[in-house]
Amino acid sequence: MKVIITGGGGFLGSQLTQALSRRPYLQWAPAEKKEISEILAVDLVIPASVRTQASDRVTFLEADLSDQAVIEAMITEKEDFALFHLAAVVSGAGEKDFDLAMRVNFDSTRQLLEACRHTALCPRVVFASSIAVYGGAYTPPVVSDTTKPLPQTTYGMTKLMGELMINDYSRKGFLDGRALRLPTVFIRPGKPNAAASSFASAVFREPLNGIDYHLPVGLDMEVPLLGYRKVVDAFIRAMECDSQVLGDDRTLTLPSRKYEVKEMIRALQAVADAKGIRLGKIIESPDPTIINIVKGWPVGTEAKRAEALGITADQGVEEVILQYLEDFYPDAFNLKT
Amino acid sequence: MKVIITGGGGFLGSQLTQALSRRPYLQWAPAEKKEISEILAVDLVIPASVRTQASDRVTFLEADLSDQAVIEAMITEKEDFALFHLAAVVSGAGEKDFDLAMRVNFDSTRQLLEACRHTALCPRVVFASSIAVYGGAYTPPVVSDTTKPLPQTTYGMTKLMGELMINDYSRKGFLDGRALRLPTVFIRPGKPNAAASSFASAVFREPLNGIDYHLPVGLDMEVPLLGYRKVVDAFIRAMECDSQVLGDDRTLTLPSRKYEVKEMIRALQAVADAKGIRLGKIIESPDPTIINIVKGWPVGTEAKRAEALGITADQGVEEVILQYLEDFYPDAFNLKT
Repeated sequence: MKVIITGGGGFLGSQLTQALSRRPYLQWAPAEKKEISEILAVDLVIPASVRTQASDRVTFLEADLSDQAVIEAMITEKEDFALFHLAAVVSGAGEKDFDLAMRVNFDSTRQLLEACRHTALCPRVVFASSIAVYGGAYTPPVVSDTTKPLPQTTYGMTKLMGELMINDYSRKGFLDGRALRLPTVFIRPGKPNAAASSFASAVFREPLNGIDYHLPVGLDMEVPLLGYRKVVDAFIRAMECDSQVLGDDRTLTLPSRKYEVKEMIRALQAVADAKGIRLGKIIESPDPTIINIVKGWPVGTEAKRAEALGITADQGVEEVILQYLEDFYPDAFNLKT
Repeated sequence: MKVIITGGGGFLGSQLTQALSRRPYLQWAPAEKKEISEILAVDLVIPASVRTQASDRVTFLEADLSDQAVIEAMITEKEDFALFHLAAVVSGAGEKDFDLAMRVNFDSTRQLLEACRHTALCPRVVFASSIAVYGGAYTPPVVSDTTKPLPQTTYGMTKLMGELMINDYSRKGFLDGRALRLPTVFIRPGKPNAAASSFASAVFREPLNGIDYHLPVGLDMEVPLLGYRKVVDAFIRAMECDSQVLGDDRTLTLPSRKYEVKEMIRALQAVADAKGIRLGKIIESPDPTIINIVKGWPVGTEAKRAEALGITADQGVEEVILQYLEDFYPDAFNLKT
């Protein structure tokens, strides 16, 4: 079976690619082994660092999913496949460019699902959605699978429309889809991006890199965090689970833990002290645009349905900081101490 | 101001056209009178009966909204306008033809909203949605503005996607939109249509026409009913209300009353007895397809936000039967008795 990962050049996409390349097969419940013959990672840009970490089974394709010909080349009737669809314009960028968000997040998703449908193979599809589907004055601070979504960003709207298509295409038997509502994922390496939630990674990463960080939100801002390893694990569990357990609702809200920014900073300092890491400074520099987007989002998630599939939150922030150091700074610090 | 009504050849569209042609103006709250200079009723087909009932201010256009040129001709920057968007493929037809439902209910709605956006006039738009956005195993029997929608038909999905666009286009200031979730509207004249809820009108209309009616659902089936005059009134109130009162959620669930089919039949018989009307017979002929669609829908609606705008449900079924006789059989029965 071919496994296709859109957004394969991005952080989560490349982590997922690596995790899958360590596995000989995916296991369709209860006991069907689907051997992974090839992993096709697609993205507008595939960084060299992602390419060099990849195993032989991984093929990279730099291409634009808004080009129908690209989708037709990727998804054919010839072979069994499973699709992880992660490619998207992020929240901040979507607020700046409505048409881009609609074209990339909605139109390309629809074209991908249409291509899946027309193979008549009813392939499994996992779609990366977001808790940005929730929002507005009446949304409770902690959301669950039964909370009404009400997006307050174009990004959130396009993600919810993607979920709706996943559900209806599945109901019609066009494909076998699952959508995961991701909380704030951390710690993302690299540079700050245009996601409004970018600070939740940058507040760890920049100081660890010895760089002073201008924090665009207040120290009391609460964020529902989920470590990137748990997210990658959730993608794979969602792909492997039996669709029967999902019933008529193919969307799962992922678990998270709620932290205030100051708790995140305290945990970072504790790890840094223990490991002898000299941190860059954190400087409060509130950005009203970022604050406005983020404060419309939930601060916690209740995720009974995801937990029933074995998807769990991290024990604490420190655990994820240590994973991040292990994965991205293997030689930089004396992590054994 | 021009008032545009899509679906103007349909039942609700033509009733709305008539109601508006009796009014010299719409009133933007609190005190701005918007004189109605022209009413443009657009539909694939405009029946002769609709044309003959219209006032001089009404213009009819038989055209397909999936033709971009039609939308461009309808919606221009030249004049102030308000749009009632009612045109849609109904639930049963949408289940039979997924692509048609997407093209008409989603793509044409998007194109209309895009045309509104590009006028830069921020026009008011009222979109007809449906309680078919609700569904699935975890949906409570009585839904409200805070119930999570989970469509179990393609029709319901496309209506929810329309709501989401109304909300986001409004949030972005592209237009000033409102969406109404209609419960089961009755009594529709004419012939049974492909809506799964068609029985809720036919069970009154066919016997009143002296025709035996094959009822496709059970006598215990519960239906949330709202009379057509109340629906037309709701469209106008939603158009006239101040967007401030809607806040960050532009969708309103309309009120209704819950009846079992046997209660509906009892009320019909009572009116018929009082008026000396000889009814056609009602024959139980369960249709599993119809039953499956309808039983996935809510049986009642709680509508506090709509009620705050003065939108109310009927007092009872008899009231709507009498309105229907008055509007559609003015000479057939001695309605004064």
